Amino acid sequence: MSGWDPWFAEQRTARENAGLHRALRPRGLGEDVLDLANNDYLGLSGHPAVRQAAAEAALAWGAGAGASRLVTGTTTLHADLERELAEFTGREAALTFSTGYHANLSAVTVLADKHSLIISDAHVHASLIDAARLSRAAIEVVPHNDVAAVRAALAKAGGRRTIVLTESIFSVLGDAAPLTDLAEACEEHDALLVVDEAHGLGVVGEGRGLVHACGLARHPNVVMTATLSKALGAMGGAVLGSAALVDHLVNHARPFIFDTGLAPAPTAGALAALRLLRPELPAQIHQRGRELAGRLGVARSAGAVLSVPMPSARVAVEAQAMALADGVRVGCFRPPSVPDKVSRLRITLHAGLDEERWARGVDVLETVVGKVS
Amino acid sequence: MSGWDPWFAEQRTARENAGLHRALRPRGLGEDVLDLANNDYLGLSGHPAVRQAAAEAALAWGAGAGASRLVTGTTTLHADLERELAEFTGREAALTFSTGYHANLSAVTVLADKHSLIISDAHVHASLIDAARLSRAAIEVVPHNDVAAVRAALAKAGGRRTIVLTESIFSVLGDAAPLTDLAEACEEHDALLVVDEAHGLGVVGEGRGLVHACGLARHPNVVMTATLSKALGAMGGAVLGSAALVDHLVNHARPFIFDTGLAPAPTAGALAALRLLRPELPAQIHQRGRELAGRLGVARSAGAVLSVPMPSARVAVEAQAMALADGVRVGCFRPPSVPDKVSRLRITLHAGLDEERWARGVDVLETVVGKVS
Repeated sequence: MSGWDPWFAEQRTARENAGLHRALRPRGLGEDVLDLANNDYLGLSGHPAVRQAAAEAALAWGAGAGASRLVTGTTTLHADLERELAEFTGREAALTFSTGYHANLSAVTVLADKHSLIISDAHVHASLIDAARLSRAAIEVVPHNDVAAVRAALAKAGGRRTIVLTESIFSVLGDAAPLTDLAEACEEHDALLVVDEAHGLGVVGEGRGLVHACGLARHPNVVMTATLSKALGAMGGAVLGSAALVDHLVNHARPFIFDTGLAPAPTAGALAALRLLRPELPAQIHQRGRELAGRLGVARSAGAVLSVPMPSARVAVEAQAMALADGVRVGCFRPPSVPDKVSRLRITLHAGLDEERWARGVDVLETVVGKVS
Repeated sequence: MSGWDPWFAEQRTARENAGLHRALRPRGLGEDVLDLANNDYLGLSGHPAVRQAAAEAALAWGAGAGASRLVTGTTTLHADLERELAEFTGREAALTFSTGYHANLSAVTVLADKHSLIISDAHVHASLIDAARLSRAAIEVVPHNDVAAVRAALAKAGGRRTIVLTESIFSVLGDAAPLTDLAEACEEHDALLVVDEAHGLGVVGEGRGLVHACGLARHPNVVMTATLSKALGAMGGAVLGSAALVDHLVNHARPFIFDTGLAPAPTAGALAALRLLRPELPAQIHQRGRELAGRLGVARSAGAVLSVPMPSARVAVEAQAMALADGVRVGCFRPPSVPDKVSRLRITLHAGLDEERWARGVDVLETVVGKVS
């Protein structure tokens, strides 16, 4: 049908030959699989109070926000969520977006322009990489978690407005960033540190995130971004910082201004999940992480994802299929989606799962990993 | 609180001095204002069946999709919506995204790279402009709706993969693009025409969009993007084209791959709205458009938004305030958000409003526009 279908077909053949072709597989309701591949880290997406809050919001407000947040798309639901998110993380203000991707695109593009310098950790998420490109700033990628390299790059900024991009907990390796040192370096150079807490919020610092845990919640040089679709079980993203930053975003962030507001149901769902977030939930993640890392003989994770190195991409895919055949779905990372060419299983350390189901998952994974190692 | 607050404050002062500062104003439930500013063109966001479908999806599936569409974030809800959207618009396949912004970012960045040429209508939406930047292609902006200029640019492509960006119905002026001529030009040059139907879907061609109305639904050189947050009353976006294009997007579109899937409630809400979409709804938009354009003495609109030129930005803001004081909210476009420096009121020609409320809106607007003209 498309004039470019021959080109799409060539690309597909190349992917298939490289073992990298992917297809969507819709899941149905009532599927009896233990899902340790998703990012619903605290199991809150399906919590009865969260489902109910989302449903009630859809009934009360309708299926959509109806317009850009700047026109009539801001509801009191958005305002409540933003106030409580800011309170919970100890920040002055918050602004929500339809996705975490948009939160990152927005934060970076309103802070940096073609006259700026962006210093980016080598492992940051695709959305931060795209954000840096979109800003048209000069970009310097520094080795992962290398504070000395960040300092060296800051020293060469030469008066340019400079921002440093990192995540708090990295998605693939599950390791934590040296936020305190990075914030100190940024403060010395009047740079801003943009920290993506996609995998930190709800997971570390009793759920308040790594920025909070490091005592940086009120640090003047730290901007935080987050997602509402992982530990908070809904969808959307947020930028958290000073009220002046939020005001600046509202006026200049194109992915905020030219987008319809987050729909009522996920807004209310995220708010209900936030209100359910107690320190016991992230504590359970870490307890399960210690247990599973011990059973599988791999390094512990700072976050909610345990990364299990596999000998090859082929073996990783085989192990994933073996686990699924035994009713346990795990993720699989292969090049080019890994920063170090090592293929991995990616196992979510779900809080909220009952002990029996969790124990069964651990048994299956121990058997599978034992077979392929 | 932020180390950059003094810079944010400077920027704010500049905006205030230019009369361009904007702030969010949350709306509450049960607000008694006739809202002719939103983009819920067919009134379907609040239709009982749409609310109910969204609520039931939240109860059944939870508040979020839980993961990327490629991991476990694809549900049968997404598959149903994609199949029915493709059927409705006459296209082979569809893929949904969390926002229309992401649909445009994705379509453009998987089709064009730094070796490509993008020819863009001067009036396209911010998301298409950002998408073009992100692709790193060479960009040639051509005058609005100027087919000869597009042909001249295509003739200079010199073998580069080339895409042409337009909207079907333009948001600010409410005018239509010459799609048939553009598609013909693209076919002659083996280029793809990317048509954003954000304001066309549900509004023209008995609701099936302008691509369908022009007989281009199966045209091999036409890619269509759309939003689920306007006529379909929910949130999200879509790209519609060949099955091979969708397969290519699934494998290469970073804002699809690295984003959580659209949440169950808005997915189900959009699907319910699509099933309610009958030709009578867009017909009512056009009938109301003819009536209001006649009463206000302005040009008709091809879409669901009537654009009323104002003598100045100041008068536009005054007129908007006068209408609101009489219980009618309308939009207001001022430079730099207009393509031609003319400030305007932006009035949504709502289908679905009962006759009495619509008639009251028309009376208020006639009085206000009479006073300021």
